[in-house]
Amino acid sequence: MIKFTDDELKVVKKIEQLKDEAGSHAPSFFTFKQKLPEIDIKVDACFLSNPYATDLFIEYFNKEILHTGNIRDLLQSYPSQNGVIAEILADFLKIDSKRIFIGNGAIEIIQAVIHNFTKEKIIITIPTFSSYYEYVKDGIEVVYYNLAKENDYNLDADQYITFVKQHRPDTIVLINPNNPNGGYTKIADVQRIIEELSFVKNIIIDESFIHFAYESESYQLVSLSHLVEQHPNLIVLKSMSKDFGIAGIRAGYGVMRKEYVDTLLKNGYLWNSNGLAEYFFRLYTRTDFAYKYDKVRINYIIETLEFIHELQQIPMIKVYPSMANFVLIELADGIQSTDFVSKLLISYGIYVRTCDDKIGLKGQYIRLASRSKEENDYIIKSLKDCVNTQMKLAIANETVH
Amino acid sequence: MIKFTDDELKVVKKIEQLKDEAGSHAPSFFTFKQKLPEIDIKVDACFLSNPYATDLFIEYFNKEILHTGNIRDLLQSYPSQNGVIAEILADFLKIDSKRIFIGNGAIEIIQAVIHNFTKEKIIITIPTFSSYYEYVKDGIEVVYYNLAKENDYNLDADQYITFVKQHRPDTIVLINPNNPNGGYTKIADVQRIIEELSFVKNIIIDESFIHFAYESESYQLVSLSHLVEQHPNLIVLKSMSKDFGIAGIRAGYGVMRKEYVDTLLKNGYLWNSNGLAEYFFRLYTRTDFAYKYDKVRINYIIETLEFIHELQQIPMIKVYPSMANFVLIELADGIQSTDFVSKLLISYGIYVRTCDDKIGLKGQYIRLASRSKEENDYIIKSLKDCVNTQMKLAIANETVH
Repeated sequence: MIKFTDDELKVVKKIEQLKDEAGSHAPSFFTFKQKLPEIDIKVDACFLSNPYATDLFIEYFNKEILHTGNIRDLLQSYPSQNGVIAEILADFLKIDSKRIFIGNGAIEIIQAVIHNFTKEKIIITIPTFSSYYEYVKDGIEVVYYNLAKENDYNLDADQYITFVKQHRPDTIVLINPNNPNGGYTKIADVQRIIEELSFVKNIIIDESFIHFAYESESYQLVSLSHLVEQHPNLIVLKSMSKDFGIAGIRAGYGVMRKEYVDTLLKNGYLWNSNGLAEYFFRLYTRTDFAYKYDKVRINYIIETLEFIHELQQIPMIKVYPSMANFVLIELADGIQSTDFVSKLLISYGIYVRTCDDKIGLKGQYIRLASRSKEENDYIIKSLKDCVNTQMKLAIANETVH
Repeated sequence: MIKFTDDELKVVKKIEQLKDEAGSHAPSFFTFKQKLPEIDIKVDACFLSNPYATDLFIEYFNKEILHTGNIRDLLQSYPSQNGVIAEILADFLKIDSKRIFIGNGAIEIIQAVIHNFTKEKIIITIPTFSSYYEYVKDGIEVVYYNLAKENDYNLDADQYITFVKQHRPDTIVLINPNNPNGGYTKIADVQRIIEELSFVKNIIIDESFIHFAYESESYQLVSLSHLVEQHPNLIVLKSMSKDFGIAGIRAGYGVMRKEYVDTLLKNGYLWNSNGLAEYFFRLYTRTDFAYKYDKVRINYIIETLEFIHELQQIPMIKVYPSMANFVLIELADGIQSTDFVSKLLISYGIYVRTCDDKIGLKGQYIRLASRSKEENDYIIKSLKDCVNTQMKLAIANETVH
């Protein structure tokens, strides 16, 4: 058990209250700053984003928007309509623009798709990103498919196929790599799932973390979005917040059959991008940016691999295999994840996400993001220190008894 | 009829094509710049926003976000959840936060409200902002209430009340001041409408242009949002794009009964604000900003009044009375609004909105926004020139015949 002083306990209470208010999600960095000014957050390791990509975006933004005075147009003018931005992406992605739906963050696409196209039964693989089950409408049957702890919460494609065939839902959802554990299912396996489950009306593949995954030694990008043309039941969606480090901009897109894009646009979403998002989408498709971005992407993957390797050496925690930019960590028996999170925040200024609200996890877990090299080093040092203190306390307690 | 050279006709075709692609809305400034680079837009008078408010926002943004380095947090961090931003507004608006719903632009609120709460029949006052009828779901009966041309498209409250009582819809919509004509209905009249029509489940009042309207000589702000507490069927919504000159940011809010806010938040919209919008909302509620904003608001109202007065002196056009930051202009017989729009764009670089797609208008109309003093002067000069040229052509034609 983690010990707190009385003063610390007051802060712990406040942290818990903030978490309660945020529901099944972590309170935002801004909310935290506003409501818990007494805490100095040194590292936001709750936050799943590539900081080097943020640097790169800011470099372009400064050069092209701030220093040119274009910021005025960006702030004051109506951004382009959904379909216009889709056209910009189409050339770059080599996907028909009529199949592309632009979202105010991936979360909007998740909601739009599940609300509009799931009519009867959805299979949700757990643990997962909570919005997937929260946005299911009343009257829709939800069936959970449990990723097995014994298999490190990785997906067993064959078992999954059998399960889906048994339950015959109209919608299934896979996040690849999965959140909150980072487990990756190879493209060939996902492709097999799609082929075997052609009777499922909506196969949603969430590729929000796919830029951190790789199958080749050169870390080449992988994606299934080009398969939508052959498989009209496939819906590939993607947040840009994580890989491009721009969560504040709110940008995402989905690739799906034309009729679905049509239906959604007839029901709103016409002007759901802001000026920053439009600038980002235009930048994203430029070869000069794409070239530089790929460098920071690969650099971040390599640093993340090192980070995970070092985490694995720390006692009292189990680090699950991950191909995302975060890891799921299971705490030793007797340590509550909420206590651990509070301790890291109060004593080290490290903000991590407790996973005690995630259905499908058996035990006490936290999710820890990979940040910059410097921040990762600080996290490793702090975690070691924290765990050592706990071990000493445990030994001291044993001596007393 | 307006004459074009062959070269101009090519551009006219392109303009018409862009308009077609944009559906019932004007193509955005960015779309125009991208697809019609041969045209140099000098004044975007399609664009309904207070340019002085944009200046003011940029002044704060530069000081507090750019020069402090806070831009990084704004770009990379997840903004706060809907309810957190609602709390910030609550104190300022003196409205319970549980009644406030934050939108990614007012358009999102319009869609959310109409999709979720209109179950049977909606009365839409025309001419209006097209989204109000476009977002009505299949199966809902739409009844149009025509604003009378003879009454300058102003609302006659008594006649309206009688009409609604006859048709007994579950939803009615009023934009005040109305778009596209700027007609204003006094608060006392709207209040009477609300009281007389207490049987209507959803009374939507769109106050997106209310900051340009006034009832006192000191141009004091008016609004009905505080009435939501007494009238649970009232839904007051508002875009911040026009009065604050920040359409690129996408910010709006709606005030409505708690159960409605609850329902919407259970169906998405949790993270629909971007970092810029969150910064704006926080700024909006600060007394230092509010004080400065009110000065630029009133200054803009006074300049707009002068602008409208000068427009009224120009022959061949009829300027309708307006309390918004734009005017509806009817063109003399024989002039097509699309031709007139093309002419203004090609010969003067002035981008205005044709209203030939607006249902409920009888005749040829354009909508012209009030911009900065300098731009307004340029618009007046150009319009006079354009009209003079047309008159000379008309006389020359008559002489020939």
